[in-house]
Amino acid sequence: MALERTAYTSYSACGIPYWIAGDVAEGEDLVARDPARHRAMGVDLRTGATATGVDLGRREVTYRDAVGEHSESYDQLLVATGAQATVPEWARGADGEVYAGVGPVKNLDDGADWLDRLTDRPHQRVVIAGGSYIGVEMAEAAVRRGHRVTVLTRSRVLRNLEPELSRLIADTMRAAGVEVVEDSEVQGLAMKSDGRVGEVTTVRGTTYPCDLVVLALGVTPVTDFLNGTSLAGQELPMGESGGLRPDPRGALADGVWAAGDCCETRHRLTGEWIYQPLGTHANKQGRAAGENAAGGSLAFGGVVGTAITRFAAAGPIADQHYLEISRTGLSLAAAADAGLDAEGLLTEGTTTSGYLPEAEPIAVHVVAERGTRRLLGAQMVGGHGAGKRIDAVAAALWGGMSVDDLAWMDLAYAPPFATAWEVVQVAARRLAERM
Amino acid sequence: MALERTAYTSYSACGIPYWIAGDVAEGEDLVARDPARHRAMGVDLRTGATATGVDLGRREVTYRDAVGEHSESYDQLLVATGAQATVPEWARGADGEVYAGVGPVKNLDDGADWLDRLTDRPHQRVVIAGGSYIGVEMAEAAVRRGHRVTVLTRSRVLRNLEPELSRLIADTMRAAGVEVVEDSEVQGLAMKSDGRVGEVTTVRGTTYPCDLVVLALGVTPVTDFLNGTSLAGQELPMGESGGLRPDPRGALADGVWAAGDCCETRHRLTGEWIYQPLGTHANKQGRAAGENAAGGSLAFGGVVGTAITRFAAAGPIADQHYLEISRTGLSLAAAADAGLDAEGLLTEGTTTSGYLPEAEPIAVHVVAERGTRRLLGAQMVGGHGAGKRIDAVAAALWGGMSVDDLAWMDLAYAPPFATAWEVVQVAARRLAERM
Repeated sequence: MALERTAYTSYSACGIPYWIAGDVAEGEDLVARDPARHRAMGVDLRTGATATGVDLGRREVTYRDAVGEHSESYDQLLVATGAQATVPEWARGADGEVYAGVGPVKNLDDGADWLDRLTDRPHQRVVIAGGSYIGVEMAEAAVRRGHRVTVLTRSRVLRNLEPELSRLIADTMRAAGVEVVEDSEVQGLAMKSDGRVGEVTTVRGTTYPCDLVVLALGVTPVTDFLNGTSLAGQELPMGESGGLRPDPRGALADGVWAAGDCCETRHRLTGEWIYQPLGTHANKQGRAAGENAAGGSLAFGGVVGTAITRFAAAGPIADQHYLEISRTGLSLAAAADAGLDAEGLLTEGTTTSGYLPEAEPIAVHVVAERGTRRLLGAQMVGGHGAGKRIDAVAAALWGGMSVDDLAWMDLAYAPPFATAWEVVQVAARRLAERM
Repeated sequence: MALERTAYTSYSACGIPYWIAGDVAEGEDLVARDPARHRAMGVDLRTGATATGVDLGRREVTYRDAVGEHSESYDQLLVATGAQATVPEWARGADGEVYAGVGPVKNLDDGADWLDRLTDRPHQRVVIAGGSYIGVEMAEAAVRRGHRVTVLTRSRVLRNLEPELSRLIADTMRAAGVEVVEDSEVQGLAMKSDGRVGEVTTVRGTTYPCDLVVLALGVTPVTDFLNGTSLAGQELPMGESGGLRPDPRGALADGVWAAGDCCETRHRLTGEWIYQPLGTHANKQGRAAGENAAGGSLAFGGVVGTAITRFAAAGPIADQHYLEISRTGLSLAAAADAGLDAEGLLTEGTTTSGYLPEAEPIAVHVVAERGTRRLLGAQMVGGHGAGKRIDAVAAALWGGMSVDDLAWMDLAYAPPFATAWEVVQVAARRLAERM
């Protein structure tokens, strides 16, 4: 039996900004398997059913639906409750409801709301609160829909990137007409006489008139219903983020499993637990936990912190105001936080041989550990073909390789794909020469 | 002092087909450093100077130029004589000269010849002898220039790919109007009354009328001038291909170094020497050998057999008849030749999330070793963004990782860049499940 709070199953949350931007015809196109399909596959799926508690000793889960409270026994329990968007107090009225024209971008209902708000009425003033991945992606969607966009971000755009790369991204967004305001945290909203949002105020006291406010302030794991739950006196392993900490098989306790955005993941480079909700991790964890709950033996080996996005003010093909953005491993700051003696270097190059018309700029930042020469991470920002270059570095990190390995390994070269010294390898080589 | 047979230095031979196709304005754009630049950097560069022999005991090299024979002593000798295109007997007349309208695509003079032959006179019948990388690239160039192209290949197009992938490529080339004839080796040419080539005959006796014949039959290392050369009774290490076999530092013997297309390279997976001339290897080997000859300590760690190319009948942007093609490691056949018990699997997917308009098909073939589960190789053919995905696999091979590592590692996911299970990882996972 599967309990699902919403009416939807198995959809691509990451695809919602592209649906809003106009690249996806129907919200249904984002659905990999709808409830009917799951049921046809033999799953006793209950939608509109919210898990409210678990008794691990009695192997019983309680849930609430439109009818009332129920309980159900289980042999194996898989917790896959995902994450919920952060909606701060200032976004809600006295009635606790989120103000009209304000909302996050988390599920299909949110997507439908934003699609409705942003289509057919261009030139609205859209404030995006937050410069995270979803903030950048929603800036693209709103710009492509013809709106006037302001991004207010607490520190800087994509702040887990190196400052130089954040700056490149902010510069491109600004060139595309997006107002990017850094060090600027939203503190409150003011309503217009029609009850819709009309103004945003930041902690610095600056005000921004607006028609719509996108909440791009991150997500938190949905695990409250497990608070205080224990088995034989042992509480379920949970981090400070509220994310569960299953073992590599996905197990939390005997007969209890967890997967997806309700979980933390183990960072392979630091050994530490981090909260990095991401569709691809959820898919992998879900496969491992599901197989193992059914007697299998798969292991989810953790993460190295890989992520990718883009900002494409004129859509995916045009190269004007187009940036691919990716990262893996540790930034210099993250390495320092982990107590590592790290060095980093930014290198600029081109995505293809420079003499070809399709060559686009790319900036690559590589970080390695002094002494051991261990590769610690890389980040890149550039034109078409830049972003997925991160995968070679992610693979090298997965295997614990050195900055020298990255500099000298056998990556693919032909003029339409790279320079004879691939830019990632130039970056690694230059860093290696300094160390 | 540097001796160079031609008038050119440091140019991108790999870029020549794109110059011919019209993507590069001037042949000079392919030159990274011209003779004047090298001289300004302090190199005593002699162009038009062909090395003819070496006396390793006396540390003396002989060379021939327009004036005559010379000899020069050295402290350190770096052999970087490169490769020459294979020009078979049937391509030459009784006078030993290559027939008019026939030629290879190796150096800038060849490029200028082909540019001249293929521009301003469209609809010529161009036969390409050979279905290698350069054959596919010249097919693109000739199609884009508006010619009628026939590729005659001894076995199949890009025969070191798996047969299924060769077939995909041949199908796309055919859809773009290229006549691809497999199992078809050229045996002879017939001339028209004006002395230009008019017909090609294959070993099967089939004839193909033509105006031009591209020789895309591979290259061989230029090392003849070292035949019989020895130091203290030891000959320089040389493989059956005629390629030199320097150690990882680039050393052949005391004070003698080698780098580039005149060398074989060590395959990291099999430990065997292979001849794989490629600009990126040459660059890396040259850097290591050059630094080391000057007292440095760099190592070239060998190759894993990575290569990439494309066929783009309508240029780089359009997605009609557009294929990116890449490979790394061992094919199933190469693994069997190396005595490995390997299994392979072909998986089809998309380059981005399937619901985005920019999604293009991609086919990925992965090979791993039974028992050890060691990853052995991968090949891919697909649309924009397909080709450089090979780098993650190349990195995994470089680090000796398993098929499970590839399936579960943390590669970059967002809808415009990959499916939630990246297609390369779906391929690896499916193969892992079978093993």
